[in-house]
Amino acid sequence: MIYLDNSATTKPFKEVVDAYAAVASNFFGNPSSLHSLGMQAEGLMTESRNRIADLLHVKNTEIVFTSGGTEGNNIAIKGAARAKQKRGKHLITTQVEHASVEEAFGQLEQEGYEITYLPVDQNGRVSVEQVEAEIRSDTTLISIIHVNNETGTIQPIEDIGKMLIRYPQIYFHVDHVQGISKVPLNFRQARIDLCTCSAHKFHGMKGNGFLFVREGIQVESLFQGGDQENGLRAGTENVAGIVGMAKALRMTKAKESKINDLVALKEQFIEQLKTIEGVWINSPTHASAPHIVNFSIPGTKPEVIVQSLTTKKIYVSTKSACSSKLSAPSRVLSVMGLEHDRANSGVRVSFSFDTTADELNVLFNELKKIIPELLEVVNS
Amino acid sequence: MIYLDNSATTKPFKEVVDAYAAVASNFFGNPSSLHSLGMQAEGLMTESRNRIADLLHVKNTEIVFTSGGTEGNNIAIKGAARAKQKRGKHLITTQVEHASVEEAFGQLEQEGYEITYLPVDQNGRVSVEQVEAEIRSDTTLISIIHVNNETGTIQPIEDIGKMLIRYPQIYFHVDHVQGISKVPLNFRQARIDLCTCSAHKFHGMKGNGFLFVREGIQVESLFQGGDQENGLRAGTENVAGIVGMAKALRMTKAKESKINDLVALKEQFIEQLKTIEGVWINSPTHASAPHIVNFSIPGTKPEVIVQSLTTKKIYVSTKSACSSKLSAPSRVLSVMGLEHDRANSGVRVSFSFDTTADELNVLFNELKKIIPELLEVVNS
Ligand SMILES: Cc1ncc(COP(=O)(O)O)c(C=O)c1O
Ligand SMILES: Cc1ncc(COP(=O)(O)O)c(C=O)c1O
Repeated sequence: MIYLDNSATTKPFKEVVDAYAAVASNFFGNPSSLHSLGMQAEGLMTESRNRIADLLHVKNTEIVFTSGGTEGNNIAIKGAARAKQKRGKHLITTQVEHASVEEAFGQLEQEGYEITYLPVDQNGRVSVEQVEAEIRSDTTLISIIHVNNETGTIQPIEDIGKMLIRYPQIYFHVDHVQGISKVPLNFRQARIDLCTCSAHKFHGMKGNGFLFVREGIQVESLFQGGDQENGLRAGTENVAGIVGMAKALRMTKAKESKINDLVALKEQFIEQLKTIEGVWINSPTHASAPHIVNFSIPGTKPEVIVQSLTTKKIYVSTKSACSSKLSAPSRVLSVMGLEHDRANSGVRVSFSFDTTADELNVLFNELKKIIPELLEVVNS
Repeated sequence: MIYLDNSATTKPFKEVVDAYAAVASNFFGNPSSLHSLGMQAEGLMTESRNRIADLLHVKNTEIVFTSGGTEGNNIAIKGAARAKQKRGKHLITTQVEHASVEEAFGQLEQEGYEITYLPVDQNGRVSVEQVEAEIRSDTTLISIIHVNNETGTIQPIEDIGKMLIRYPQIYFHVDHVQGISKVPLNFRQARIDLCTCSAHKFHGMKGNGFLFVREGIQVESLFQGGDQENGLRAGTENVAGIVGMAKALRMTKAKESKINDLVALKEQFIEQLKTIEGVWINSPTHASAPHIVNFSIPGTKPEVIVQSLTTKKIYVSTKSACSSKLSAPSRVLSVMGLEHDRANSGVRVSFSFDTTADELNVLFNELKKIIPELLEVVNS
């Protein structure tokens, strides 16, 4: 099996699965219970929170456990906008956000908020100047994706954050789901107030994530109940998943030294792709993530390529997983200004730190066979 | 270890942990992905959905996977109230709901909804007549807990549902988290529109639950993003947890024939407790769940009893886990009309189907020792 769909989800580390099973079996107490089983579970959760905070150089009180990236983005965006609505109802984001950000804003729009969706350049990027130009006295929240999940485009988060130092009343949220451990980001230096992460994108378990909420930032909760997570996220905690997530983050972070290897793999793969007639590279050359390559073969149906590779046990994707069943052109590629046929035929290959040159060679050789065949059908 | 805090959380079945680990390791694809790994994951999810639906005699399209009971209650209550707000803004619930229901209504109250919180009798119960008397032309939702998590009181859900047949425009939500498999409830016969369940209360994993949403019922989602779960609950699904939950439900349901054994254990334990001077039984004699016994020792601090039993590896609780760290009197016992000292000293013992008479004897013998000692301190 050659798994190259790591932006959709990753295979959990064996150590994470083992830790999960051990905690679920042996430390199954409810962390809110007063007895020692509860206290043990709470202790494990605290340890995990400390470890995650340390790895990210933030305070343990700034980590809020969630059920994943979608929930994290929704809490951050709707929670912050609603908490600040007395001050203003203007919000800024981009046209290339993940569905969970885009639709959270869509919901707020229905509630009477005014949203500015920044257009992007041909690389899928916004500029600091563009962001600043849209700031108004009633702007309360700016939310920008760090690494785009379809193209790997990196937004200038740190520069935007530095500019935002002059606007202390505006909350800055970053969807860091695709960036974590692949594209280093220092939350403090980038003046980030809210930052979303999801465990299953870094070899943790599905159904776990965390939201960084900087000290002093006000966010309304989406669901109420017990006062878990300081009341911001009620509900019995998924202790085993949280322990697994902390372990996965530590293990992934330990591989950060391999980022340059990924970059080299990616550049080589792109050079290979360029030798196949009919292939257009959509991922930008500069400031793009080391683990995502997006390309189009105008005229072909990307689903056909995905399915054809599946029969060889090679797994890649079309656009983002959660919209991959819709056969519309990619919204992200479209707003980058790519023509319809190209936006409609995007294929995404996404690496993990364990991806090898051999695997990419196998994929390349398959593509070299499939693509001319497909194009022949189209052109005949 | 004698674990008698099954209302706070249960130990997952070994088979469930094993299934979780196997799915997480071998079927880790994102169910939204187009390739075969994604399709396998989606297939497992569909199978689990079918199995749960079959066990509950509902349609598979009526099962929505959630992250647990708190989220389920919030989606059902806020989602239904908001979906129906054009028709009216009056809602009915009781004074003995779980915090996740109570606070969801609290949030709606802040948003301008009018809530009737029904008082209960000395058994913690509401009557059909009481519910009907509060119905108005602008009532859109009635939410009633099935089995109370502190006392085990069973509400007359089926009778309320039958009465509600005459009010087809009102949605009926039931928090079935404590009832499932311990107190049979037929969703259709009880004319239930929305019903919340949580996996970790029936030996599944924490971080998983499901909401029954009857066909045709309109509910707004709490978070937006991908169109997972028909758009009602966006976010990459916790496939391994879902498979585990279906297995846990099947295994728990297979034990329903043991309900009478639980009832016998419970009655015997209550008779034993009654022989200890200073003990008052709070769980009602009739129409109470087979697995929950709540009693008070006025004058004592229930935390002291919990801690003292903990040293003997016996695990019980004070009130509901998620409020157990607050030292206020139990809200549920208070509204049942119990005097302050009694409402302030509630201890909850909650069984699983594997609880034995021997375990309860050990607990009883400990209590017989501890309670007189504690009361002596109080009275001296
Ligand atoms: C950029 C981005 N944000 C948010 C999410 C949502 O995360 P989750 O799948 O944990 O809900 C994803 C992945 O699906 C993503 O790629
Ligand atoms: C009656 C009741 N409803 C809802 C919940 C919340 O469920 P969860 O812990 O899965 O969030 C609980 C338990 O905590 C409960 O006992």
